[in-house]
Amino acid sequence: MVISSEFLDALAPSSIRGITAKIREKAKSGVQVVSFAGGLPSKEFFPVEDIRKINNQIFDEEGGEAIQYAASDGYDPLRQYLVEFMKRYQVTDINYKNILITSGAQQGLAYLSKGLIQKGSVVIVENPSYPGALDTFRAYGAEIVGVDMDDDGMRMDALEELLQKYDKVAFIYTIADFQNPTGRSMSVGRRKQIVELAEKHDTFIVEDGPYSLISFSGEIMPAIKSFDRYGRVIYSGSTSKTIAPGLRIGWLIADEESITKLVYLKMRDDLQVNNMAQRQVYHYLKDCEFDEHLKTVTDAYYRRCQAMIAGVRASFPQGTKIVVPGGGLFMWVELPEGFDTLEMFDEVFQKNIAYVPGTFFCSDGGGKNAMRLNFSSADEETIKRAIPILGEMICQYQQKK
Amino acid sequence: MVISSEFLDALAPSSIRGITAKIREKAKSGVQVVSFAGGLPSKEFFPVEDIRKINNQIFDEEGGEAIQYAASDGYDPLRQYLVEFMKRYQVTDINYKNILITSGAQQGLAYLSKGLIQKGSVVIVENPSYPGALDTFRAYGAEIVGVDMDDDGMRMDALEELLQKYDKVAFIYTIADFQNPTGRSMSVGRRKQIVELAEKHDTFIVEDGPYSLISFSGEIMPAIKSFDRYGRVIYSGSTSKTIAPGLRIGWLIADEESITKLVYLKMRDDLQVNNMAQRQVYHYLKDCEFDEHLKTVTDAYYRRCQAMIAGVRASFPQGTKIVVPGGGLFMWVELPEGFDTLEMFDEVFQKNIAYVPGTFFCSDGGGKNAMRLNFSSADEETIKRAIPILGEMICQYQQKK
Repeated sequence: MVISSEFLDALAPSSIRGITAKIREKAKSGVQVVSFAGGLPSKEFFPVEDIRKINNQIFDEEGGEAIQYAASDGYDPLRQYLVEFMKRYQVTDINYKNILITSGAQQGLAYLSKGLIQKGSVVIVENPSYPGALDTFRAYGAEIVGVDMDDDGMRMDALEELLQKYDKVAFIYTIADFQNPTGRSMSVGRRKQIVELAEKHDTFIVEDGPYSLISFSGEIMPAIKSFDRYGRVIYSGSTSKTIAPGLRIGWLIADEESITKLVYLKMRDDLQVNNMAQRQVYHYLKDCEFDEHLKTVTDAYYRRCQAMIAGVRASFPQGTKIVVPGGGLFMWVELPEGFDTLEMFDEVFQKNIAYVPGTFFCSDGGGKNAMRLNFSSADEETIKRAIPILGEMICQYQQKK
Repeated sequence: MVISSEFLDALAPSSIRGITAKIREKAKSGVQVVSFAGGLPSKEFFPVEDIRKINNQIFDEEGGEAIQYAASDGYDPLRQYLVEFMKRYQVTDINYKNILITSGAQQGLAYLSKGLIQKGSVVIVENPSYPGALDTFRAYGAEIVGVDMDDDGMRMDALEELLQKYDKVAFIYTIADFQNPTGRSMSVGRRKQIVELAEKHDTFIVEDGPYSLISFSGEIMPAIKSFDRYGRVIYSGSTSKTIAPGLRIGWLIADEESITKLVYLKMRDDLQVNNMAQRQVYHYLKDCEFDEHLKTVTDAYYRRCQAMIAGVRASFPQGTKIVVPGGGLFMWVELPEGFDTLEMFDEVFQKNIAYVPGTFFCSDGGGKNAMRLNFSSADEETIKRAIPILGEMICQYQQKK
């Protein structure tokens, strides 16, 4: 007997995880795909030796306590350290009770979905936006409405129109820094504006900040949360892109009472986060050379990004537009009108190259001629070799049409 | 602004985690509570040195891959090993695709709740049963209906009556081995019967098996799942009580298509389980002295249980009944009629002893004169010292009335 319910039966594989699962299948049969698809940080930079030392230190100091049941709200030293950490984004007006540790940022988004989305709720998102978030909002019952972006991020006039049109907006979801998939960042002016709009229209902002520290210029922008005078901004943090994703550590920041409610949800859902991972992140941020590590990673991603830009410019069809990213992991490429990147996908994948079709990111059915390319996962040499092959396949596809 | 919704606002702290949070608060101010409350396995037995070695081995062999993004269905070598592991319970007719790795068994119960409970659903449980599960079923919208137990576990005649009475039974939840809180086990005959009843009444059984290997006699009973001819039994496994709970590793076993649906849910909810923890459990079960470890733990818990039985018999009021456990972590104590263990709790807690009031386990408002005592957490000496103090307080309470 197969389990069944309206909720379960509406779920499909997540679009991007669907692709990465295919890549894993090929790998099992010995075929390596050059993946520009997933959002994988580069594992060669993961601080394995530091974490190895931290593991030993944890057991030396705490013994079995490090793997005993623990509090649902998180490991207090980590929560307290994150209060300091958030000053990097100019978020200063918080204490550790404003922070819930989650098993990765995705879990925080799922908790907010369960907590805030009700029958008839709308969630406003950037168009395009991260499908892993949109899938979760949809699964928990939201209608997704996209706001167009320009070079300064989400357009505030378009946002205000939507806030006037819909009266049950559960929250506005934004990736303000080096957005997924476009690589764009929201201007400081708009960060202030969006907070005022949320207050005026009585809704919340969920600010997702996984890429903020992967800044090519080194400049870190003030979070929207730093302009939050009304408790309207819920911040979602992560170390998946800056330390390692397999640790599954994220955090939510909100007012204390909201965090308390989310802790009760955590008690229902999985009791607590893995103890050792919380300690690994705490000690790594506090005791190791995190800033130096960040510079190494960011510099490498910058070089990979430059190699990708050069490759796309040299080999993709005339009329292709790219958004040059200031940081993060992704580049958004728009092919000329008439291309269908979803249709092309299988053919390209047969040649063992993968990207994510643009339509996966667009809540309005757009993005047909766009694709997201990840530049963090493959090394420069691979990028220099594979991007021209991808470009050639795209050009051939054009000729066949 | 505090976030708010019907769903969120209905949540309260989980009853047992509420008590353990109080105990943690006291510990912060330097006061150690003798806790017979939580379900903590004894951390002195956690295989810290083995896990330390495994951590190093993982990094030696895999480097950064061990903390990279990974599959949502779990670490395949662990899934494959669990196929072998389940033979301990005579579950033989499965392959690794029937297994989803979860961040602890609680997460599996939450997934099943989200997937199977719909508006108007009933979940049938043993009365009394584990409140952490009942709270989750309730949070996701189920009405909880309890079935009385006798020495052979859930009464099948009473179960059948309920299955006839309610037509929207999402599932029957049972802890068949060394049940929480009663320590009772379901007889083999009833295990066969319950499968037939689930088939006849078109519902599922969720079999929760965290305590099964903590068997004082060493005998491991066949799981209900081993009698499942119809795919009606979803098995929930855990190593929290046999290795360590802070690793947060559990698993669900169901037919392949059901597992696929649950994997899609996992993609929405938190992407994947912590990689290292999956590897720790895999290597510990496969490469270390798990059976020897299990014997050490079980023997120690047996001695603690005996000390507790002796203490309760010697010091609790006349007319007190205990269920002598054959294994597991808990003893169920019924004081004579008229006692109110919830009312007594604060007074006892002031003297720095904690238990869980029986009413927390009872879906029908019963259990007022009962309490659950955990015998795994405190050592023999502490049990011998503290149980008579608890007994004396109870007797004094009787005199005051």
